[in-house]
Amino acid sequence: MHVILDLCLVPLGVGVSVSKYVVVCHKVLEETGLQTSLHAYGTNIEGEWDDVMAAVKKCHEAVHAMGAPRITTTIKLGTRTDREQTMADKVNSVEKQLE
Amino acid sequence: MHVILDLCLVPLGVGVSVSKYVVVCHKVLEETGLQTSLHAYGTNIEGEWDDVMAAVKKCHEAVHAMGAPRITTTIKLGTRTDREQTMADKVNSVEKQLE
Amino acid sequence: MHVILDLCLVPLGVGVSVSKYVVVCHKVLEETGLQTSLHAYGTNIEGEWDDVMAAVKKCHEAVHAMGAPRITTTIKLGTRTDREQTMADKVNSVEKQLE
Amino acid sequence: MHVILDLCLVPLGVGVSVSKYVVVCHKVLEETGLQTSLHAYGTNIEGEWDDVMAAVKKCHEAVHAMGAPRITTTIKLGTRTDREQTMADKVNSVEKQLE
Repeated sequence: MHVILDLCLVPLGVGVSVSKYVVVCHKVLEETGLQTSLHAYGTNIEGEWDDVMAAVKKCHEAVHAMGAPRITTTIKLGTRTDREQTMADKVNSVEKQLE
Repeated sequence: MHVILDLCLVPLGVGVSVSKYVVVCHKVLEETGLQTSLHAYGTNIEGEWDDVMAAVKKCHEAVHAMGAPRITTTIKLGTRTDREQTMADKVNSVEKQLE
Repeated sequence: MHVILDLCLVPLGVGVSVSKYVVVCHKVLEETGLQTSLHAYGTNIEGEWDDVMAAVKKCHEAVHAMGAPRITTTIKLGTRTDREQTMADKVNSVEKQLE
Repeated sequence: MHVILDLCLVPLGVGVSVSKYVVVCHKVLEETGLQTSLHAYGTNIEGEWDDVMAAVKKCHEAVHAMGAPRITTTIKLGTRTDREQTMADKVNSVEKQLE
């Protein structure tokens, strides 16, 4: 089952600036070899369900290991059985119609 | 790693009424034995990370198996290392302060 | 336009415990007279679009006024034109089918 | 109150393909003159709270006007009082640390 997921992980109890935790998550995701794309309110990830979910778990573990006592995460995720679709397909489909 | 998760699964391409899919998800969750609580915009679930995430995956598989070609899901999830906290603890903490 | 909304407001830069901010939000919501229902990962609210959105804004203003320098909020919201539906209708529809 | 918002609007009861509705939303957003950025699971928007929220409402109205009987939307939004921050600042801050 292929999944496109939008991950927004927020550490609590570590002050107001959270970018260093986002950076570590991004490195964790890069090590997995999964396709990712950073935006201003999260990171898009795509791949097989188990791989993507394992990556999300590793992000939580890494951010707790950095000292964050609490994390709240918001995820959007999509699966479909009718056809294959990548993150790029989704963006291209909209941009093509906008032209 | 204990997690409290809010699951909102939405099947697409099956018409405007989605409650029968929510019902099947709820049955899938009940079979897992995990603690759950239904509300008007999702279901709260708590347990060990791997158990909860396996349950979310089973919900996607069950809803696709019912014929939904596409699913979009929104999840909020929280983990903490500073102390144990249940779903009931969270609600009680707020309600106590509201009295 | 009637809306059912799930609000999860998270103050950042105020330490690990956020329940007192949730309490203030709940009081702000109560003062609006809107129908609300607290759960373990947010609060369901229903009413007219403008009233509900004004309430969400008031919550942000109140939490900043308490000293939180940063807030991240996750919202799910639903509108429909085919028929009227309350939060209670949504829960009842599922629970009836679960019996 | 300046806000950075991530909007993901999903029409229900219109079949499995939803890109034409996303296209209309994007046009509605462009007409507002607000800064936006499309990604694979939503659109980032920034501006003053009332302007951004009015744009979100216009998107719902436009998608219902196209014939979608039901919409479920997921929003993440952030406000801060400690300093000004744009969408570009957030992405740059992470990318700079990744170098």
